[in-house]
Amino acid sequence: MVVKVITIGQKILGANEEKARANKKRLDERGILTVNIMSSPGAGKTSLILSTIKHLRKKSRIAVIEGDVASSVDADKVNELGIPVVQINTAGGCHLDAAMVEMGLNDLPLEKIDLLFVENVGNLICPNNYALGEDRRVMISSLPEGDDKPYKYPAMFADTDVVVLNKVDLQPYLDFNEAAFRKVVTGLNPDVIIFPVSCKTGEGMAAWFSWLEAAVNGKRDK
Amino acid sequence: MVVKVITIGQKILGANEEKARANKKRLDERGILTVNIMSSPGAGKTSLILSTIKHLRKKSRIAVIEGDVASSVDADKVNELGIPVVQINTAGGCHLDAAMVEMGLNDLPLEKIDLLFVENVGNLICPNNYALGEDRRVMISSLPEGDDKPYKYPAMFADTDVVVLNKVDLQPYLDFNEAAFRKVVTGLNPDVIIFPVSCKTGEGMAAWFSWLEAAVNGKRDK
Repeated sequence: MVVKVITIGQKILGANEEKARANKKRLDERGILTVNIMSSPGAGKTSLILSTIKHLRKKSRIAVIEGDVASSVDADKVNELGIPVVQINTAGGCHLDAAMVEMGLNDLPLEKIDLLFVENVGNLICPNNYALGEDRRVMISSLPEGDDKPYKYPAMFADTDVVVLNKVDLQPYLDFNEAAFRKVVTGLNPDVIIFPVSCKTGEGMAAWFSWLEAAVNGKRDK
Repeated sequence: MVVKVITIGQKILGANEEKARANKKRLDERGILTVNIMSSPGAGKTSLILSTIKHLRKKSRIAVIEGDVASSVDADKVNELGIPVVQINTAGGCHLDAAMVEMGLNDLPLEKIDLLFVENVGNLICPNNYALGEDRRVMISSLPEGDDKPYKYPAMFADTDVVVLNKVDLQPYLDFNEAAFRKVVTGLNPDVIIFPVSCKTGEGMAAWFSWLEAAVNGKRDK
């Protein structure tokens, strides 16, 4: 039997780009490296941010904009570390956009920040279509999601600067084929940097910290 | 420090409901039980559908509508089992809607179907807002996603008939607190049925099969 495939037309996105450029200019003027963190729900965005805050906070002044459909559980965790944080609740919206990030920026002490994490809503689709004014796009893919995710959500893998491949501590209990995953991801995105890590055990995190620190310093020294 | 929370206004959804009612009527007339399967990417929608096909296919005539942003990898797996399947590629769209399902129905042999699975796009947010004409909503939540997901994506947990709690075989390697998860889910949705399962090992699947079989028979005998 031949599988019938129906393809639905895509909407054109508009005015968000302009707002994103304004955010970028505002952040550039202050030398703030801004990182848009995207992933499926539960892949480890907040874990990555919390681990990175603990490691880098002595060297860099960090702040966070947290995007969620509801609740402030993630922002509360960041707040416990004494880091400036704004929670954006999208009330059903499946991604952050540049206007929401602008509202977040208005509530942060921008003159005292070197590194801004924007934790997007957990979603592998729409966040990719909305520039926020970020310098770097980082997506997290976690082993339990399976090695076929780049086939099914190719745009996000194609457009990201970094893939953090999280939960490598679970490899012995899963069928995840890292070589197959890397092959598809680099096919979509030849320049991507892949960091296999476990936010839980700390495995592989040093390489991620080094990359990020170099990017923060590069932006500040510009 | 008090966490600043910004809440974004929500759009009102419109004409989809009418189309969904038309789909429902069409499916009701043929006594087809239609199940809308929703989850995060990689939680196990396709695994659940494939396991269920293998178990129930001798008793019920099954068909599948597969929703994905791109690719037909899931539909290909269903097709290998010799089950009628239509792949809907949303080309960036983050959910199925009733019009897409209508297109799928036009390509399926409705007179020969007792049970129709509609596998939604992997997303814990938007699919919940789009009725498709289904009889039952089933969402899958998997242990590696963490027990805090009901706080962050409450609408989907509140509106579903069933939560399949998948990947229980990974419990020894995770910090997932099932009691805490159940407490939040039943707080949002007192009538929900929760099936802890492992699609990989088969643990817990018998209860899910029994529930589904009873629903299929109930619809057919109406």
